[in-house]
Amino acid sequence: MVMENKNYIGIDFGGTNIKIGCFSADMKLLWKTSIPTDAQMGPAAVIDRIVEIIKEMAGKKNTSLETIKAVGIGAPGPAKYTEGIIIQCANLPKFTNVPISKMLKEKLGKPVILDNDANAACYGEFVAGTGKNIKNMVFFTLGTGIGGGVISDGKLLRGSDGNAAELGHIIVQINGRLCTCGQHGCAEAYASASNTAKRAVEAIEAGAESSLKEVLKKNGQITSKDVYEYLAKGDELAKKITDETAEVLAVLCVNALHFTEPEKIVFAGGMIAAGDILLDRIKYYFKQHIWKIKQEDNVEICFATVGEDAGIIGAAALAKEL
Amino acid sequence: MVMENKNYIGIDFGGTNIKIGCFSADMKLLWKTSIPTDAQMGPAAVIDRIVEIIKEMAGKKNTSLETIKAVGIGAPGPAKYTEGIIIQCANLPKFTNVPISKMLKEKLGKPVILDNDANAACYGEFVAGTGKNIKNMVFFTLGTGIGGGVISDGKLLRGSDGNAAELGHIIVQINGRLCTCGQHGCAEAYASASNTAKRAVEAIEAGAESSLKEVLKKNGQITSKDVYEYLAKGDELAKKITDETAEVLAVLCVNALHFTEPEKIVFAGGMIAAGDILLDRIKYYFKQHIWKIKQEDNVEICFATVGEDAGIIGAAALAKEL
Repeated sequence: MVMENKNYIGIDFGGTNIKIGCFSADMKLLWKTSIPTDAQMGPAAVIDRIVEIIKEMAGKKNTSLETIKAVGIGAPGPAKYTEGIIIQCANLPKFTNVPISKMLKEKLGKPVILDNDANAACYGEFVAGTGKNIKNMVFFTLGTGIGGGVISDGKLLRGSDGNAAELGHIIVQINGRLCTCGQHGCAEAYASASNTAKRAVEAIEAGAESSLKEVLKKNGQITSKDVYEYLAKGDELAKKITDETAEVLAVLCVNALHFTEPEKIVFAGGMIAAGDILLDRIKYYFKQHIWKIKQEDNVEICFATVGEDAGIIGAAALAKEL
Repeated sequence: MVMENKNYIGIDFGGTNIKIGCFSADMKLLWKTSIPTDAQMGPAAVIDRIVEIIKEMAGKKNTSLETIKAVGIGAPGPAKYTEGIIIQCANLPKFTNVPISKMLKEKLGKPVILDNDANAACYGEFVAGTGKNIKNMVFFTLGTGIGGGVISDGKLLRGSDGNAAELGHIIVQINGRLCTCGQHGCAEAYASASNTAKRAVEAIEAGAESSLKEVLKKNGQITSKDVYEYLAKGDELAKKITDETAEVLAVLCVNALHFTEPEKIVFAGGMIAAGDILLDRIKYYFKQHIWKIKQEDNVEICFATVGEDAGIIGAAALAKEL
């Protein structure tokens, strides 16, 4: 009997945790695990730990290294994805010009593909979630920042160096609010989870009346979750902040439609926990902002269904395409 | 000897003129011609004329119908491109729900592909102009409106129904200037040739001092060409208007870079006659607006080289892919 390579490893390489999953060729989860990133240990040590964990789990779960065909990694950008090199990342100290694909390949003896973390999550949603059975999709993750992914004609859109779909940095307001990336007026500067919360704090500091003031006093901070909680309670400032977030996200949807004409626009990430109170507003503002010259725009705006495993599923699915 | 089908017809279907070109398989121009569109004659009559012209030219130029393998059409949107149907177009009265591909196919007995006119011009520039030897390109035509095209990984990005790359309608200013499409804050509403001129007229009507006032008085209008001419003469208003146009186009370039990461961003259309006085300003504002977290962005911003035949070349090249 010939031993077949038939399984794929997907790695979601984050600033805080590294999630690792092993999937069969039909993308069934065989095992998954998560370790703290400990980026300050340096690239060599971090990669050694990943290799150790894969070998350990592989032994335990009857998916020995011989059964692994390829490995996919999703990591934050910007990077030289086509060359498999992490250039730098605010959340990954000591990771400057790290040829992560080459290092992992040498240790594991398997082909390795590196892609953007949001691209990997997008691909996971595409193969295993609400993107099944469609060919064109745009994907946003709403967290500290806004990540993006684009599926065009059934394929991940990568651009000339794998840095396409940096959708949080689409400028929706010329010379608008300063973004951490250095641009002004990025969608992310208004509508990420952290900037939604930050705008609430700024409004309170500028004298706005709101029950959120008590939250700020008690917790020393406001989260986007607080904003949606107080919106549900009828707080006027929470409503204003949410409306602004939803309007920016809706304009991002308009721009996505005009760029790549997806069948679905999918939101993922922590902030979708807000539920319909957010989704309905995005849809409302989309109708306000979309052009009037075409009667029907058959795009569906919805939330992701895969959840937190989207990154490892997508990375494994990308490895399968190697 | 077997007679081979080896030539391709490209049609640039405009509101004023219809340009028709015949190309060999290696995209050498064999003949071209142009006729007034006369859209008010109705679809059947217009299509009969196109067929007549093709037959007449084919006879004259030793490219008999038998040598034609397929036909490509570039026409203004929005349309159901995948079905070959022009839905409606402000510049094409009487063309409502016209199955132009089917009608032409029946008359000519050849496969027909319909695509967006800007997509066709983009593809022409890609196969025969500054897009040669690259795989990722974004293309803008600056005319009455702003048309767009995207080449991703060597292919025209079409979206779910052929309406991708409507790049003039990317919103760069939420709740900004009203666009003819019904949206607010579209790039086109500021930076197309006609809106560049229109903003100059509006400024003068609002009391701005400028030598362009004389032009308006004399000609009853101002064109974008006038604006650039007076900019060269040192007119302050012309400078302000041009700066605004260039800044909006630069932000459009930033957004294009973050969406599809092209190697080149190419401007075409009437307004590029302005030359370096416009291009240098776009590049200047691009550097102002692009993010600072990635050192190098290897995108080149430049003007198209193919000129007015880009539409027929691109349509023929698309027909070749049928």
